[in-house]
Amino acid sequence: MKADRLPHRYQAFVPMTLPDRTWPDKTLTAAPRWLSTDLRDGNQALVNPMTPARKLAMFDLLVDMGYKEIEVGFPVASQDDHDFVRLLIEQDRIPEDVRISVLVQARDELIRRTAESLRGARSATIHVYNATAPLFRDVVFGISRQECVDLAVRGTESMLRHSERLLADCDLGYQYSPELFNETEPEFAVEVCEAVMDRWEPGPGREIVLNFPATVERSTPNVFADQIEWLDRTLSRPAWRCLSIHPHNDRGTGVAATELALLAGAKRVEGCLFGGGERAGNVCLVTLGLNMLTHGVDPGIDFSDIDRVRRTVEYCSELPVSPRHPYGGELVYTAFSGSHQDAIKKGFAALEAQAAEAGESVRDRDWRMPYLPIDPEDVGRSYEAVVRINSQSGKGGVAYVMSAWHGLDLPRDLQIEFARTVQAVADATGAEITPDRVGRLFEQEYLSTADATKPLAVRHVPVLTELFVDGAGPLSADGAVRSGELDSLCTTLAPWGVLVTGLEHTGPAGKSQDPGREAAVYARCTFPDGPAWGFGRGPDLHAAAFSAVRAAAARAGETSPEPTGVPVAGPAAAERG
Amino acid sequence: MKADRLPHRYQAFVPMTLPDRTWPDKTLTAAPRWLSTDLRDGNQALVNPMTPARKLAMFDLLVDMGYKEIEVGFPVASQDDHDFVRLLIEQDRIPEDVRISVLVQARDELIRRTAESLRGARSATIHVYNATAPLFRDVVFGISRQECVDLAVRGTESMLRHSERLLADCDLGYQYSPELFNETEPEFAVEVCEAVMDRWEPGPGREIVLNFPATVERSTPNVFADQIEWLDRTLSRPAWRCLSIHPHNDRGTGVAATELALLAGAKRVEGCLFGGGERAGNVCLVTLGLNMLTHGVDPGIDFSDIDRVRRTVEYCSELPVSPRHPYGGELVYTAFSGSHQDAIKKGFAALEAQAAEAGESVRDRDWRMPYLPIDPEDVGRSYEAVVRINSQSGKGGVAYVMSAWHGLDLPRDLQIEFARTVQAVADATGAEITPDRVGRLFEQEYLSTADATKPLAVRHVPVLTELFVDGAGPLSADGAVRSGELDSLCTTLAPWGVLVTGLEHTGPAGKSQDPGREAAVYARCTFPDGPAWGFGRGPDLHAAAFSAVRAAAARAGETSPEPTGVPVAGPAAAERG
Repeated sequence: MKADRLPHRYQAFVPMTLPDRTWPDKTLTAAPRWLSTDLRDGNQALVNPMTPARKLAMFDLLVDMGYKEIEVGFPVASQDDHDFVRLLIEQDRIPEDVRISVLVQARDELIRRTAESLRGARSATIHVYNATAPLFRDVVFGISRQECVDLAVRGTESMLRHSERLLADCDLGYQYSPELFNETEPEFAVEVCEAVMDRWEPGPGREIVLNFPATVERSTPNVFADQIEWLDRTLSRPAWRCLSIHPHNDRGTGVAATELALLAGAKRVEGCLFGGGERAGNVCLVTLGLNMLTHGVDPGIDFSDIDRVRRTVEYCSELPVSPRHPYGGELVYTAFSGSHQDAIKKGFAALEAQAAEAGESVRDRDWRMPYLPIDPEDVGRSYEAVVRINSQSGKGGVAYVMSAWHGLDLPRDLQIEFARTVQAVADATGAEITPDRVGRLFEQEYLSTADATKPLAVRHVPVLTELFVDGAGPLSADGAVRSGELDSLCTTLAPWGVLVTGLEHTGPAGKSQDPGREAAVYARCTFPDGPAWGFGRGPDLHAAAFSAVRAAAARAGETSPEPTGVPVAGPAAAERG
Repeated sequence: MKADRLPHRYQAFVPMTLPDRTWPDKTLTAAPRWLSTDLRDGNQALVNPMTPARKLAMFDLLVDMGYKEIEVGFPVASQDDHDFVRLLIEQDRIPEDVRISVLVQARDELIRRTAESLRGARSATIHVYNATAPLFRDVVFGISRQECVDLAVRGTESMLRHSERLLADCDLGYQYSPELFNETEPEFAVEVCEAVMDRWEPGPGREIVLNFPATVERSTPNVFADQIEWLDRTLSRPAWRCLSIHPHNDRGTGVAATELALLAGAKRVEGCLFGGGERAGNVCLVTLGLNMLTHGVDPGIDFSDIDRVRRTVEYCSELPVSPRHPYGGELVYTAFSGSHQDAIKKGFAALEAQAAEAGESVRDRDWRMPYLPIDPEDVGRSYEAVVRINSQSGKGGVAYVMSAWHGLDLPRDLQIEFARTVQAVADATGAEITPDRVGRLFEQEYLSTADATKPLAVRHVPVLTELFVDGAGPLSADGAVRSGELDSLCTTLAPWGVLVTGLEHTGPAGKSQDPGREAAVYARCTFPDGPAWGFGRGPDLHAAAFSAVRAAAARAGETSPEPTGVPVAGPAAAERG
């Protein structure tokens, strides 16, 4: 084959024309009815179909999440499916407000066996289908349009006959699908559906679900939306038929096709958690539901433990969920780049400040956050997982990790300096630096290992120019540090040979310090060869400051066997003013 | 937090109004310019950023596939990125028709270092960005609208100044991105871009790429398309600016947003192979390209070895591609359910018949195939991978495997019967049945293990009612079997106690048999307890038929120590008429 022949093997899908479409001007305002087909379409596409134990795990998950319509199998397609339907009914595992559904081809004998499989069910839907697309009529079945209509009508008759006999006590629903709807001539799809409705006679208390599968996705999603809007305008009995859709994802646009079809009038959606199902899968119910939530529309489904959903789906399907799957993937609450991390850090700070001002919890505030379309906590993920440090991270990420993991709010200049250290390690190893590793690197670099009670042994007098108490702004008389502390510190440090000068308030006072917590301070000292940062902890501010000065001196290469200071004990033991 | 509060934490994205939009009436007719950002946005979002060796593997793949614009890094963000740009230039690894691109924030010092990193490049694009969305102006940077515009203009000036000095010999392109465009007030995005264009002064031979990132996907894709159509109408200098988009996939609708934006006027798309990139990833270039191909539009990119693309992306990113990823996932050319398999089998048969009639190869024919939106061979995958057998498979799948793997075209009734055997095994084991296993099951069930030269030892006379020569219709005088063969067979089998009756031509003659191949036949015999199928092979039709009858008798429980027939040798040795 000539390579330039390749595109000519394929034809653009010829869309219907609907110039007066109204869906592009609409927005999503309410959730549709959901049907999970994880146990049918999802299960039939697995390398290893689910065992009964796995099916039960999936069924229980779906019930717990709040799905009220669950397609539980294709009883005539395999003994496994049949047996699972019986197990659910006989062990009374179906909650009263949940309706199970089973799929069957439009063939009398199969419908009879399907109805039999439902005996004893409180409420159930029989879902009858036949393929209506021309390729299937012509190539697969060799039937005419009329024969195709007759199949659907006879299937509906079989459904009526067998269910009357076998399922008299069941609250029975009926669903009909013209399979491959999206490849079917629209007028023909309507012709089949009208013939089915004529036989079923929907009316008050007697709904019919007309379900329109994009069995194989073939067109841009706007075309599917046009098809649905046209259908909704054209099909009769709007009050008694529920317009349902069953999108697949062969073009990677299943979620979009669903959303636009909902704008266009669809009222019910069939899909699978994390997009299981034949080939590229059914539309993903998780993405759809959480897209709605992040638009302020209640999906009516509980996604508060997304990791449980993911784990269960992975267990049942024996297939992995992509680490980049929207909302549920392992990596989707992780920002790697420094600018993203910095923005997220500022976003959280702003949100916390707003919440504090309003006297509310952060989770009661509206969510407006750089790079995170949803609050990870709303799906049971955590802030702590947001940032990882690698060679792409800047100061924002490092600062966030130091704050969120290690409870240390580094001054901005120290953030910049330390981020370079982290980046050099990341560049040298080429690998992710874990938050623990970041903490260890910080201590190695900035914390003094010298005996805190020993005098300061330095070649030159340290000039302490900046001192930040962790959680507060720079130490000053009007900051978070209590009045008098600054003078007191000068007095304490002076005998130790530390000159304190130029300390003043330059930033906002931060969060107030937990009184029970040990003091932690960042000190910047100037020496003849230049400035250096140090970090210190101690039982009180004075001890911590002295330790930080000691660390700065060590980093500046000022350590000397000859102490400059005179007292023999640390400043914590010295008299204070 | 009260659960019913949850949806109220989020606001629907307020779309712009564009009631006279034209994009929904358009279709895709040409590929856009593509830019791969696998080495920049893709790389920056990896747990372990790519090593130089992995970056080179990705770069070479992108070049081989035909990408002409490749963003190779963010040189000021990490030493790794800087060094890789130098490596590409100094080792002269960039083909003449490929333009590399590098990203940088709109800050003078960073732009200077970025321009330095490009020294010696033949052609390159410097891509300057700053965030323009209100959340970023207010919360992240604390700047006014005017300061935001000034940042972009000063970045453009820096780009001009440093590139004149450092990159005089480079065919230099300029790209500007208002980051978070999709969350920016549209008029403000235009204001920034016009200010940038005023400074850059695009004109003949002096293009500007204006790139509009949906940095975090926030709205249904139709809203993004409206934004792009409005931009394209509103921005000045349409002849000299290229309207580019950079969609992400946070709502799972990145592909759709891109396609609708292309309808709306975008001319260039930035993305990653298999959707790498921050969080839920950038838009997937593989899906976009093959969506175009399957619409008959040449993407200008070579996807003929999709498995190489997948393997390389997995190697470079150390992340798996989902088994359900459109076009490239492991499972997307696999049909599990029986009805799908049956339809695909008929689709292939129809395609082969059309090709044979036209004297063409199958791959020169238009592709119309149930359930397979693309010919797997067009991306280097194979038909053989299409069908697996599990408990959901019906006769179609079993028949397809027997034909494609084992070269045996089973008669329809035998397909149905054998599919039940396979299904029972699949149900009992709960696992996938491999094609090899299907073949072994068939031989165990239908092939006689008795010594072919021994007389037939049965309790009752077998009545041979149906005989199919493999690859032909039922044995008959006007079928594929040569004239006289039927009479001859009756004559041969009669002395062996086999009554031949009712054989007639009922189906189409199939493909003609390879003369060098041994004969294979399916025989259905009637015994007092009912009919049974058997399968036989032999050096010629007679030997194979006798073997098949022997197998049928064994299956019917007719084996007996007393032979009914009289000749002592098998029919192959007997005289023929």
